[in-house]
Amino acid sequence: MFPGATDKRGAGDAAGQTADSADANFVVVGAPLDVSTTFQPGTRFGPRRIRSFAAPFDDYDYRTDQHFSDLGVVDRGDVHTWDDVSEYLEWLEGTLRDAVWDDAIPLVLGGEHTVSLAGVRAVEPEVFVCLDAHLDLYDAYDGNPLSHAAVTRRILEDVDSVEEAVILGARTGSELEWERADADDVTVVSPETVAAPSFALDDVVDLEARSTYLSVDIDAADPAYAPGTGTTEPFGLEAREMRDIVRAVAPHASGFDVVEVNDRDDGQAASLAGKLLREFVFSAGATAQTQ
Amino acid sequence: MFPGATDKRGAGDAAGQTADSADANFVVVGAPLDVSTTFQPGTRFGPRRIRSFAAPFDDYDYRTDQHFSDLGVVDRGDVHTWDDVSEYLEWLEGTLRDAVWDDAIPLVLGGEHTVSLAGVRAVEPEVFVCLDAHLDLYDAYDGNPLSHAAVTRRILEDVDSVEEAVILGARTGSELEWERADADDVTVVSPETVAAPSFALDDVVDLEARSTYLSVDIDAADPAYAPGTGTTEPFGLEAREMRDIVRAVAPHASGFDVVEVNDRDDGQAASLAGKLLREFVFSAGATAQTQ
Amino acid sequence: MFPGATDKRGAGDAAGQTADSADANFVVVGAPLDVSTTFQPGTRFGPRRIRSFAAPFDDYDYRTDQHFSDLGVVDRGDVHTWDDVSEYLEWLEGTLRDAVWDDAIPLVLGGEHTVSLAGVRAVEPEVFVCLDAHLDLYDAYDGNPLSHAAVTRRILEDVDSVEEAVILGARTGSELEWERADADDVTVVSPETVAAPSFALDDVVDLEARSTYLSVDIDAADPAYAPGTGTTEPFGLEAREMRDIVRAVAPHASGFDVVEVNDRDDGQAASLAGKLLREFVFSAGATAQTQ
Amino acid sequence: MFPGATDKRGAGDAAGQTADSADANFVVVGAPLDVSTTFQPGTRFGPRRIRSFAAPFDDYDYRTDQHFSDLGVVDRGDVHTWDDVSEYLEWLEGTLRDAVWDDAIPLVLGGEHTVSLAGVRAVEPEVFVCLDAHLDLYDAYDGNPLSHAAVTRRILEDVDSVEEAVILGARTGSELEWERADADDVTVVSPETVAAPSFALDDVVDLEARSTYLSVDIDAADPAYAPGTGTTEPFGLEAREMRDIVRAVAPHASGFDVVEVNDRDDGQAASLAGKLLREFVFSAGATAQTQ
Amino acid sequence: MFPGATDKRGAGDAAGQTADSADANFVVVGAPLDVSTTFQPGTRFGPRRIRSFAAPFDDYDYRTDQHFSDLGVVDRGDVHTWDDVSEYLEWLEGTLRDAVWDDAIPLVLGGEHTVSLAGVRAVEPEVFVCLDAHLDLYDAYDGNPLSHAAVTRRILEDVDSVEEAVILGARTGSELEWERADADDVTVVSPETVAAPSFALDDVVDLEARSTYLSVDIDAADPAYAPGTGTTEPFGLEAREMRDIVRAVAPHASGFDVVEVNDRDDGQAASLAGKLLREFVFSAGATAQTQ
Amino acid sequence: MFPGATDKRGAGDAAGQTADSADANFVVVGAPLDVSTTFQPGTRFGPRRIRSFAAPFDDYDYRTDQHFSDLGVVDRGDVHTWDDVSEYLEWLEGTLRDAVWDDAIPLVLGGEHTVSLAGVRAVEPEVFVCLDAHLDLYDAYDGNPLSHAAVTRRILEDVDSVEEAVILGARTGSELEWERADADDVTVVSPETVAAPSFALDDVVDLEARSTYLSVDIDAADPAYAPGTGTTEPFGLEAREMRDIVRAVAPHASGFDVVEVNDRDDGQAASLAGKLLREFVFSAGATAQTQ
Ligand SMILES: [Mn+2]
Ligand SMILES: [Mn+2]
Ligand SMILES: [Mn+2]
Ligand SMILES: [Mn+2]
Ligand SMILES: [Mn+2]
Ligand SMILES: [Mn+2]
Ligand SMILES: [Mn+2]
Ligand SMILES: [Mn+2]
Ligand SMILES: [Mn+2]
Ligand SMILES: [Mn+2]
Ligand SMILES: [Mn+2]
Ligand SMILES: [Mn+2]
Repeated sequence: MFPGATDKRGAGDAAGQTADSADANFVVVGAPLDVSTTFQPGTRFGPRRIRSFAAPFDDYDYRTDQHFSDLGVVDRGDVHTWDDVSEYLEWLEGTLRDAVWDDAIPLVLGGEHTVSLAGVRAVEPEVFVCLDAHLDLYDAYDGNPLSHAAVTRRILEDVDSVEEAVILGARTGSELEWERADADDVTVVSPETVAAPSFALDDVVDLEARSTYLSVDIDAADPAYAPGTGTTEPFGLEAREMRDIVRAVAPHASGFDVVEVNDRDDGQAASLAGKLLREFVFSAGATAQTQ
Repeated sequence: MFPGATDKRGAGDAAGQTADSADANFVVVGAPLDVSTTFQPGTRFGPRRIRSFAAPFDDYDYRTDQHFSDLGVVDRGDVHTWDDVSEYLEWLEGTLRDAVWDDAIPLVLGGEHTVSLAGVRAVEPEVFVCLDAHLDLYDAYDGNPLSHAAVTRRILEDVDSVEEAVILGARTGSELEWERADADDVTVVSPETVAAPSFALDDVVDLEARSTYLSVDIDAADPAYAPGTGTTEPFGLEAREMRDIVRAVAPHASGFDVVEVNDRDDGQAASLAGKLLREFVFSAGATAQTQ
Repeated sequence: MFPGATDKRGAGDAAGQTADSADANFVVVGAPLDVSTTFQPGTRFGPRRIRSFAAPFDDYDYRTDQHFSDLGVVDRGDVHTWDDVSEYLEWLEGTLRDAVWDDAIPLVLGGEHTVSLAGVRAVEPEVFVCLDAHLDLYDAYDGNPLSHAAVTRRILEDVDSVEEAVILGARTGSELEWERADADDVTVVSPETVAAPSFALDDVVDLEARSTYLSVDIDAADPAYAPGTGTTEPFGLEAREMRDIVRAVAPHASGFDVVEVNDRDDGQAASLAGKLLREFVFSAGATAQTQ
Repeated sequence: MFPGATDKRGAGDAAGQTADSADANFVVVGAPLDVSTTFQPGTRFGPRRIRSFAAPFDDYDYRTDQHFSDLGVVDRGDVHTWDDVSEYLEWLEGTLRDAVWDDAIPLVLGGEHTVSLAGVRAVEPEVFVCLDAHLDLYDAYDGNPLSHAAVTRRILEDVDSVEEAVILGARTGSELEWERADADDVTVVSPETVAAPSFALDDVVDLEARSTYLSVDIDAADPAYAPGTGTTEPFGLEAREMRDIVRAVAPHASGFDVVEVNDRDDGQAASLAGKLLREFVFSAGATAQTQ
Repeated sequence: MFPGATDKRGAGDAAGQTADSADANFVVVGAPLDVSTTFQPGTRFGPRRIRSFAAPFDDYDYRTDQHFSDLGVVDRGDVHTWDDVSEYLEWLEGTLRDAVWDDAIPLVLGGEHTVSLAGVRAVEPEVFVCLDAHLDLYDAYDGNPLSHAAVTRRILEDVDSVEEAVILGARTGSELEWERADADDVTVVSPETVAAPSFALDDVVDLEARSTYLSVDIDAADPAYAPGTGTTEPFGLEAREMRDIVRAVAPHASGFDVVEVNDRDDGQAASLAGKLLREFVFSAGATAQTQ
Repeated sequence: MFPGATDKRGAGDAAGQTADSADANFVVVGAPLDVSTTFQPGTRFGPRRIRSFAAPFDDYDYRTDQHFSDLGVVDRGDVHTWDDVSEYLEWLEGTLRDAVWDDAIPLVLGGEHTVSLAGVRAVEPEVFVCLDAHLDLYDAYDGNPLSHAAVTRRILEDVDSVEEAVILGARTGSELEWERADADDVTVVSPETVAAPSFALDDVVDLEARSTYLSVDIDAADPAYAPGTGTTEPFGLEAREMRDIVRAVAPHASGFDVVEVNDRDDGQAASLAGKLLREFVFSAGATAQTQ
């Protein structure tokens, strides 16, 4: 269980009353999909590892003056995977949609990036904001339209609600992906641009009054900050740069995931992923409280 | 390249004459399939790792008085994988069949156990001898008939030439697999039986005058001897016990693979795998010479 | 959750009826104590790691023709530790005693060996059978009577019900520990004796009609079989030798633990520990069924 | 032995004259305490690892034009730990006080942060300057007033000489810790403030004419720079930022420690720790020479 | 084979025409020398590891609008090492000179830094530009003039064509090395200077109209970015800073190497090394195209 | 320092009297040579690692009823290496000869096997008994007569006192090595022979009344028992088999080494090495006492 979260029955058990996910503000779901990774596998251990490396984090957040355990985060455990990715995504989408129908924000722990498709289908946002080293705009990769390398394309083209994608930290892609990225519905922001002191998210996308989904592919980070991911790509974002994006997007977002964490490092990727999830919750929670 | 092997063009280059795979006695092919592993992934790194940990082995074999580099072993590199396993197996089968047509014995470096299906299809043996902790007799696993856990079943039921399977070192399986194992075309030999001083392969299968394919799932070994595999299963074979089986089967075999090695240990699994491949070649080679 | 176990509420949830631990035959409890390890720490990760490496094991056991998931194993999760070991042991004992009062057999996942004291107090057996490289007969270690190195002494001297201790696989101890071991209430069986083909547990202890607790310190195994433990001691038992002891004791035992597993290897120790727990359950379960 | 240091007898042996620690300017002491770590243990290996990863550093320092081996650094080895932390700290304090009485500056290699309490008691400074991700201002953690998470509180409240604490790089704490941090005797400087080009230590504390102790909890660094520590906390300091603080404080300091390094990374934490110790010595040494 | 490169025969094989290295623009050669490393060995695995971690990089480069596989990169594999370093360097130089004579740019994958001597001898540049934490200006190290720690000295003094050396990112050296660095033919640029926004390579060296060789010792990077190297030295360059140097030098360079990568991290050093090689090729290739 | 040993000055310091190595019965010397390893390097970390993993061993030995710390073992630390192997061996020999002249038995911690040459030169035995997977009978390896792969040949042919070599556990070598092994002065005993219940050392060599040196190349063990070595070779000895050889030879031996341990496993190789050294000391010590 993510530290500070409760499981849906646990709360009721302890308090002598029925607490179910309808009371939750955020619902954590693990999605340990690990089939299309092209280089180093291990995302199946991502959810477990993120929960584990979140253990030492303090419950209290000084910046927003909130306790994580007060924010109504429920951890429903993992949706275990099987071989048929298409079916799996539908099942996962169902689980996440339950959360959405209960007015909670789903927080997906990947698993490979493909799981974002389930998250976006469940949330049906207008804007898909993504931190990623890669464009993920393949129409299909190795003939597979559900590859992690095609997820942003799938989201743009197969989810009706989505109007545009904003990809921050992207620094590589195939020629066809970059051509697709030239279209009006895609905005790519390089790591150098994100790192510039003058950068403001408002300059690249207007999130006011639009529903948004935020996806964090941990490989957006430089490998120094997140070596434990399938396809490391140097010259990436620093941890604080990613954090500032998460803080800026969270108040507008109704869905979140952090993906592509594996177990092939000494905890750097998982620790960063868990921390970014918490930053999302604190920022989204603070907004909710002040509304 | 497997140490002591040549690539098909390399020989010609050095000697000023045309050496191609038609001259080979053995053809090494890497098959880094890594899609259906149920626990720890990484078999995609198996072929590379086996070749690497074979580096320190002496070219000369005292027991059979042969040099590995004299035995006509050609390494054709890896057949890279893609998402469609069924197609991949066909392609791999084609590569291996080329070797068979040139009167060479294919030596497949896995990759997950599924690749044995391609090996057996190419070789078309009467007997399938297998070292494995598992029965691999699922009809389908998670709905997938091409899962590594179904490979011996596929081989028995889908390859016409195969009359029977002998599974040595097996110690676990589902209830349905054990029921399937009761049929006449399957012989299961427990690790304890293999380890008994009195054990002789002849007692469980007659390989004389029957074409045979030998498959070594490295998890037949106790995890002490091969921790780097997807689904470790304690109480397994010791390295010398596996070696003795390989030596006994090799003179009768026209195909070989060693599978399920990953990179999640300190080299034990890969070192054992490379050594068993060499024992196979030396034993098969010695037989060929004396014929 | 240990694979194949249920959590106490889970069963009821799924089946539409109330299943609680009163229905359980076995209760898994994690006890991640990690304070007195003298060399390599990390037993705090033992319970998690044992559960994880048990993932690939088949539910079905051929030898006893049973399914693990049919045997009524409930996993209550971990009893988290804090700094006061004495208090912690009392709390843990309370949790385990609940299981005993419900006629279930507690299965403790350590954690350092000290946790056996809580297990034995809860079960109150007449005989304490232990697999261990060490005697653990210190009166106190570094002034600490609750050190893992003193646990068998504590059990012998502080738990009234216990009449004798049998330590199998022991190969080292201080001079004072060996003197204590000379007393009538201790039987030490060397690894060589256990390994001898002629060895029978009956020769060293009569378990018929006496209540028994079985504790497996994973360092009883040779470091080849369990490198991931705090104080490795070469020349130990092989996995199959430990298994045979577990099978022999289980039918007589009303409590079980497996301890001293840490995360400093490639899974060998955890895999062996999980397997031994299952052997215990299958053997104890088979006995129960035939009674 | 820390590279470039001598042991107290070694010098005399080689030179034919009595060199003892009374001649030392700096005394290295390892304090491998590892009992209260809340997440990943292993600080017991910190001193060994820091000494080891200091091996490749050049003896000469270009910036200050000094050789480390000329600066009178004696390494007295480790003060081995035992179970009673309170007693251990007293013993360690005694060892460090010996150094202080000989007019040397103690350099403690942790071990968990708790050991700073011994250092501060021995040095009796007016100001405690600390690099840390955490406030360490718990009154007690899990009921333990000697937890690493309470060390700055202990130092502030139990060491009479200490007037104030300055915590640089802190980014997390419990609500009660932050409240304690509001008091006049605590100054907290966030990583962002430290990283700002305009930051000057003089703006937050006046060290002129006040005796000072500098403690470096390696987790002040971002996990990219020091993954090998017990409680990683993203969004931390970069290595150069920590170095500049050490350089600024060293000329005023009469005691130093670097703590919370463990062996769970590829050497990053230990390498940084050893380098910061050297920066301290070079900066303190240069000051001494010019006085 | 480096991903996107061809081997010289492979191209001809596929295309039905003779492609040999005379057609190559760049020739990759592995030089796994690993004899004089003073701290952590393993550079023998550098070439293999760099090629492996380059697997996930896209063929296409957006900045320069080029495909790596279009740029005529041939990978000739490794020049295997033996005990006589002097002889080995001559042999390696011969291999690289072949590339130079065919108007190709050699790209050497180290191996320890000593291999740069072979590269520079083959290329005979006027300027040696080097990214390195160390000066490598020893006349001899431990009596060995071919130590990695003496390579820049050897290049300056033993290769007639070389007029000057520029060492960027250097932060440590012996006193004698720093004295040698004071001479007119050496320019040292500290990491802080390289990192300054105002830094321009033109300010420290004029590469126009002068032939240049670029050597990247991966330890120029901070250990956060490249822990897998023999002698880690904190306070180093960030990955983007190294990249910008490579981009600036490449258009003027007729030889390149990246050295000192070992296998003792989670891929960070190798990933960065492979990426810098690609940046070199793209920048050099882009220049060539526009000429 | 090896646990239970003293350094030569330490004893005098504590006891107020002069204890020097003239009082020692055994002298431990680390020889971290690491230059000619052909596959995986790291023997430079062997001595440190062996000492470290010996930490958990009890001082007392039950079999011989002795305390290690009573047996007069002095640890003189490491003889640090440099590039000239020939010179290094002479220096090391000098250090070891000092011990021999003081009637102590040298105990060398390797380092690569080459260091045995220094040990044998210092001890000048008649018989060289060796546990090794390899013959080490190359006349020169890669042109290097001081390669680890030539050490037994060097000892046989260059040390006048040596009459014969007995190599136990050997299972591989070049054709020329096996031919050399056919000579009268070499006896090779296969792992299978050593493992046979009927095996007795007396059957292969008469050590009575002949001075002997015992060298343990840790790769004699199966890789399951010692993965952390340069050139793993499967089908080797089990730990208990090696122990029994050590016990049998020790009473006749005046010199001992354990070599080829590196840091590339989870401690198995180092733990076994330290334990075998202790078995040697206990067995040699027990003999001395009864004489
Ligand atoms: Mn992605
Ligand atoms: Mn990505
Ligand atoms: Mn299988
Ligand atoms: Mn299997
Ligand atoms: Mn124990
Ligand atoms: Mn034990
Ligand atoms: Mn702290
Ligand atoms: Mn801290
Ligand atoms: Mn260099
Ligand atoms: Mn360098
Ligand atoms: Mn040897
Ligand atoms: Mn050997």
